[in-house]
Amino acid sequence: MAHAQIPGNAPDANAGKRRAAVCFACHSVDGVAKIPGVPNLAGQQRAYLENALLAYREGKSRRNVTMNAMAAPLSDRDIANIAAYFSLQVGSRSGDTGNWAM
Amino acid sequence: MAHAQIPGNAPDANAGKRRAAVCFACHSVDGVAKIPGVPNLAGQQRAYLENALLAYREGKSRRNVTMNAMAAPLSDRDIANIAAYFSLQVGSRSGDTGNWAM
Repeated sequence: MAHAQIPGNAPDANAGKRRAAVCFACHSVDGVAKIPGVPNLAGQQRAYLENALLAYREGKSRRNVTMNAMAAPLSDRDIANIAAYFSLQVGSRSGDTGNWAM
Repeated sequence: MAHAQIPGNAPDANAGKRRAAVCFACHSVDGVAKIPGVPNLAGQQRAYLENALLAYREGKSRRNVTMNAMAAPLSDRDIANIAAYFSLQVGSRSGDTGNWAM
């Protein structure tokens, strides 16, 4: 995966939290998703989150009806700030504790 | 995001670990990526990991040269097992500790 760094000033995680309010319905304010199929974002690599949002906004390399629509109005600065916010969250690693062969 | 569940027997996380050996170069054996831009997989939602790998294998909704090639040879069972393996890892949440405005 490419290592994008959105140019400009250091990201503002507090601004990211405000801009990310609409994200919390699925990804939760702490970035640990409570909905099956929705990824945890807490503690995720910041550059990865930036790249994913840029790709959803562009809508070519990542096609998902929900995420393409969510990312469409975001500026580069919004994306940098939101990525910073979620990368700094430290949720419990929830994973999926279903019963399976070990 | 859709909630896919690959049908069949419960996944086998140990088999997933064996099949995922090629993944570890970037995603690390514990699922905490050491390379900027590469996502952490430890503790990620199992259904999300399944969906992501299915999408990379299909190559339409997720286009990434590396991941499309990595996913191409995987069976549904491989994908279920690999998703189970990474979802069960509990790495430290590393995120990105770069210096930015808080």
